[in-house]
Amino acid sequence: MAAQSPLVIVGSIRIDNIETPFEQQADLLGGSVSYACAAASFFAPVGMVGVVGDDFSADHLATYRHFDIDLNGLQQVPGKTFRWSGRYDADMINRDTLSTELNVFESFSPDLPKSYRAATHVLLGNISPELQLHVLAQCETPQFVVADTMDLWINIAREPLLDVISRVNMLMLNDSEARLLVDQHNLMACARQILQWGPEYVVIKKGEHGAILVSRNELFLVPAFPLDAVRDPTGAGDVFAGAFLGSLASQRDSELSAVKTALLHGSVVASFGVEDFSLARLKTLDRASIDARVLTLQRMMAV
Amino acid sequence: MAAQSPLVIVGSIRIDNIETPFEQQADLLGGSVSYACAAASFFAPVGMVGVVGDDFSADHLATYRHFDIDLNGLQQVPGKTFRWSGRYDADMINRDTLSTELNVFESFSPDLPKSYRAATHVLLGNISPELQLHVLAQCETPQFVVADTMDLWINIAREPLLDVISRVNMLMLNDSEARLLVDQHNLMACARQILQWGPEYVVIKKGEHGAILVSRNELFLVPAFPLDAVRDPTGAGDVFAGAFLGSLASQRDSELSAVKTALLHGSVVASFGVEDFSLARLKTLDRASIDARVLTLQRMMAV
Repeated sequence: MAAQSPLVIVGSIRIDNIETPFEQQADLLGGSVSYACAAASFFAPVGMVGVVGDDFSADHLATYRHFDIDLNGLQQVPGKTFRWSGRYDADMINRDTLSTELNVFESFSPDLPKSYRAATHVLLGNISPELQLHVLAQCETPQFVVADTMDLWINIAREPLLDVISRVNMLMLNDSEARLLVDQHNLMACARQILQWGPEYVVIKKGEHGAILVSRNELFLVPAFPLDAVRDPTGAGDVFAGAFLGSLASQRDSELSAVKTALLHGSVVASFGVEDFSLARLKTLDRASIDARVLTLQRMMAV
Repeated sequence: MAAQSPLVIVGSIRIDNIETPFEQQADLLGGSVSYACAAASFFAPVGMVGVVGDDFSADHLATYRHFDIDLNGLQQVPGKTFRWSGRYDADMINRDTLSTELNVFESFSPDLPKSYRAATHVLLGNISPELQLHVLAQCETPQFVVADTMDLWINIAREPLLDVISRVNMLMLNDSEARLLVDQHNLMACARQILQWGPEYVVIKKGEHGAILVSRNELFLVPAFPLDAVRDPTGAGDVFAGAFLGSLASQRDSELSAVKTALLHGSVVASFGVEDFSLARLKTLDRASIDARVLTLQRMMAV
């Protein structure tokens, strides 16, 4: 029997073409589950649930193996892998989608191999709420479930999304998504409304400005490491989520202090991730560098 | 001989009409020096340098006296006080100026009374760089000088502004101003360039996202207190600056740890200020409430 991963992550796998104001790169390994699994792997064994086409390169598979990702839940089916092209504005935040070809992702049915079903930690990456519910139904004894989402599902699948939100421990979303979901500008007001829908925690991501963790009784300001340059912000939120849940899965409990530590890990690994395209920076990263930057970040907040 | 204030602040005095998406108020006491002096007064005696017209109301004067502001440097001249009307967008950040009447502010010549000239701490609020230099020339032994600025001066008075920057201990400006001044999007890169021009410290204000203090060797992330509602953001940056320099003036030295403590004070007093229009919230504020919120904010950052 194969060793079981405590952490399972489901999401998209994409081949990206990315342009920034400074450079462009093509045929990059991307998608939420690629970023999140690579990031989680620094902290805990992680199993991937995703789909690729028969064009998926051996190089990209080798990248997954570099991070020791459990690929039992990776489906390879006839057809082409999901492809996306985008161009970032000068702010390196706003971007235009130049093309989206869902390809094999369009009919993705995320089925968990038996070896994943006892996972204690589950990250429901950005896929349709219906598929998130389908994954959750296959988890036998989840202890901590995080859901991510995006504007598309808020707009076209609000009811199933609220169902997901009511069933997870933590909803993680960015500031514009929170405002769209709650129809409120103030982020604290958004977070308090989302808590009413059921989750124990809401994490609102604010990009270069960090994130806020809100629970019924607590608030934690998650700092972002200030970078002199961002080379490619793609996947930063997924890296944040993956490193967070990997770190949490590696800790003894899921108490608030463990959640806070895990969020710092998420923030720091995300700050490394955007220093290069795709998973390039994470490939050369090690745990000691992560820990050193966490300490640096904590010093930057100390009076 | 009158007691001398260690801290002198120069800037604008305005009568504001303000609309938010939720309400509007007219004939409000505003302007950078009104906000900054009121905020500084919680920490140290402060002298104001500003100009009003003969229409300036006894109520507004009483407000200054409420904060025990030294008004020896307040000039009252024939004509009307500077008036401004603005309307905030739904984000409570972006705003449209509906009208600006400079009135007596147009020919403001900020002359320091003798009792101000030994001030150790000086805040050169947002007036033209030429006037900032004129004020600085009148200070006999300044120990810590902070300059604020705005997009107007960056666009039309760049050379004198660079002269100001080279002569002060700290430049305080917001993120969009930093980007305009340096012509760079990345804020860390902006800060490092500004340091090359001479100041010991740069503080880049990011509104609800806090601020960053950058020196040659150090970086401090100044958190913003997360508010459930902002009623009127006008003057937040001036309150931040005033409370910062008041707190610094009240401390034994100007070492980095004193600067950091003072920045936390600035952030917290600014968070109170935006809870109501004009100086209404600061009028009911006390030092104990400030200290309590500083502790709360520090707890929100603790792992």
